[in-house]
Amino acid sequence: MTKIFAYAIRKDEEPYVHEWKEAHPDVEVDFTDKLLTPETASLAEGSDGVVTYQQLDYKADTIEALDQLGIHNWSIRNVGIDNIDLKKAKELGFKLTNVPVYSPDAIAEHAAIQAARVLRQDKEMDMKLAKHDLRWAPTIGREVRDQTVGVIGTGHIGQVFMRIMEGFGAKVIAYDVFRNPVLEQKGYYVDTLDDLYAQADVISVHVPDTPENVHMINDESISKMKDDVVIVNVSRGPLVDTDAVVRGLDSGKIFGFVMDTYEGEVGIFNNDFSGKEFPDQRLADLIARPNVLVTPHTAFYTTHAVRNMVIKAFDNNLNLIKNEKPETPVDLDKEF
Amino acid sequence: MTKIFAYAIRKDEEPYVHEWKEAHPDVEVDFTDKLLTPETASLAEGSDGVVTYQQLDYKADTIEALDQLGIHNWSIRNVGIDNIDLKKAKELGFKLTNVPVYSPDAIAEHAAIQAARVLRQDKEMDMKLAKHDLRWAPTIGREVRDQTVGVIGTGHIGQVFMRIMEGFGAKVIAYDVFRNPVLEQKGYYVDTLDDLYAQADVISVHVPDTPENVHMINDESISKMKDDVVIVNVSRGPLVDTDAVVRGLDSGKIFGFVMDTYEGEVGIFNNDFSGKEFPDQRLADLIARPNVLVTPHTAFYTTHAVRNMVIKAFDNNLNLIKNEKPETPVDLDKEF
Repeated sequence: MTKIFAYAIRKDEEPYVHEWKEAHPDVEVDFTDKLLTPETASLAEGSDGVVTYQQLDYKADTIEALDQLGIHNWSIRNVGIDNIDLKKAKELGFKLTNVPVYSPDAIAEHAAIQAARVLRQDKEMDMKLAKHDLRWAPTIGREVRDQTVGVIGTGHIGQVFMRIMEGFGAKVIAYDVFRNPVLEQKGYYVDTLDDLYAQADVISVHVPDTPENVHMINDESISKMKDDVVIVNVSRGPLVDTDAVVRGLDSGKIFGFVMDTYEGEVGIFNNDFSGKEFPDQRLADLIARPNVLVTPHTAFYTTHAVRNMVIKAFDNNLNLIKNEKPETPVDLDKEF
Repeated sequence: MTKIFAYAIRKDEEPYVHEWKEAHPDVEVDFTDKLLTPETASLAEGSDGVVTYQQLDYKADTIEALDQLGIHNWSIRNVGIDNIDLKKAKELGFKLTNVPVYSPDAIAEHAAIQAARVLRQDKEMDMKLAKHDLRWAPTIGREVRDQTVGVIGTGHIGQVFMRIMEGFGAKVIAYDVFRNPVLEQKGYYVDTLDDLYAQADVISVHVPDTPENVHMINDESISKMKDDVVIVNVSRGPLVDTDAVVRGLDSGKIFGFVMDTYEGEVGIFNNDFSGKEFPDQRLADLIARPNVLVTPHTAFYTTHAVRNMVIKAFDNNLNLIKNEKPETPVDLDKEF
């Protein structure tokens, strides 16, 4: 009987593992909450494939441990493969899949909700409520429908974000180096980033962190923006020069900032520092501000996305085992 | 020169007073942050009309004080007129206006944002962040697009709420005793409230608090709802049996609760109890819960709404002074 073993299955993933299992009675499925390491590889003994989550570096020793068990079908549940020793995997004849798209809506919804919250000043109101100050003034909201929303990057996520903001009644404008023909026809695009900065009350970046995009939100671009602008980054930390944003918040130029990704997030996000010394004073300061909404790279983290990550990874793995073409293979020949 | 005097102008209203003033150079406009009382009435001496905000009871003595100054054109900036001695006003020949609708979007946007926040578990995440716990699991979000949203009451506010939720991609169903023909044609209505309770993941009430609607959300209706339902009340406190909701939260039946209005809000909302004893233990408990979002009747409180309240009240007052028909007169003959 075909057997798949999955590593690092969290409580919130278990229902979807069971869902996949029930839909595939001909496949034996087993899992652990432990990470895949040279030591835990033996748990997968007798399996035809493994499903993992990218969290640790998968170095030669881990890959060799799988190889020794005769396991060469490997499916990761998320997108990133930069911490896998791909050269070793190729050398030992592995076949690899990832899940590059699991829910654009998860991220777009988060961007929209958080942007609306900043406009509404609702963290300030929550903080007042928590100390039993129930006065409303001067914590007045701005309605989303009154805003011009500027979207930089009109891929999957940017487009969903645009649709949500239009549902609120906002005016939406966009900029992208690669224009989507449908959006172009509907007249969303402005000619230059400077045009977008000049017109938008809310600016959300949805672009990859290629070298030319690093620190695209900086002192110069902020100076071109409208007063009381709201800046949203749920994409990649390096897109934003955080010090420049802090300066804009301090001067009052920037009304508020939504931050789900952060230049210095590795080693800090998804860790617990409660009761301990916090390692990044700038981040601690941002978290404490009433007009800044920090989340630790959780925009993706919805039941819809997690279900897709699990189901798609198992589907991919079964394809590999059956020698069928998986939906999202990682081309090991292309990687180096 | 025509003169209008305005009372109780807050800081956030001042820009709109100035805006109206600039648009009416032929009218002298003056204002105070003080409330209209028998003592402050003299500040309006020489004016043709007054603009006020309903906050105090306006009893016979206040109304007589205006009468003695020869002022009988009275425009309030909000909707409620239940604390005005209307009989006295009529007897002394007053003409009265209010502003019954200032921004349905303010309230609908708030309902949508808060409902989305409950689904996303973002108060829980904010609380974790505040104590420097940056782990994401198990604080997983539900996407709005995956929900069936049930709207009870399809007036101005309910309709805007429906449009916003559809922008997110949610499935929207509705119930109303008085059906809107356009919505009916589009197939939004379910036949009974029980149908709505059986299907909806998110339920938002947008109905008046008539006697038959009081405590429409109660133990019985909650028992008919789906598990993990989100309940939203940004309309009127008495619509919800708060004890029943607390029971539903305690049992885990209810996933979360959005509350901008509260049965016992008078004398508590818009007051500052920080550092003092809080007068309502049930409310304090609700405020502290990570899956309950309390706001002190601030859903209406946006720049758009406040601008409309100011501009429309001044417009109305000028109409009264010029013996023109104001947009929203209060019919004193109809009141008793």
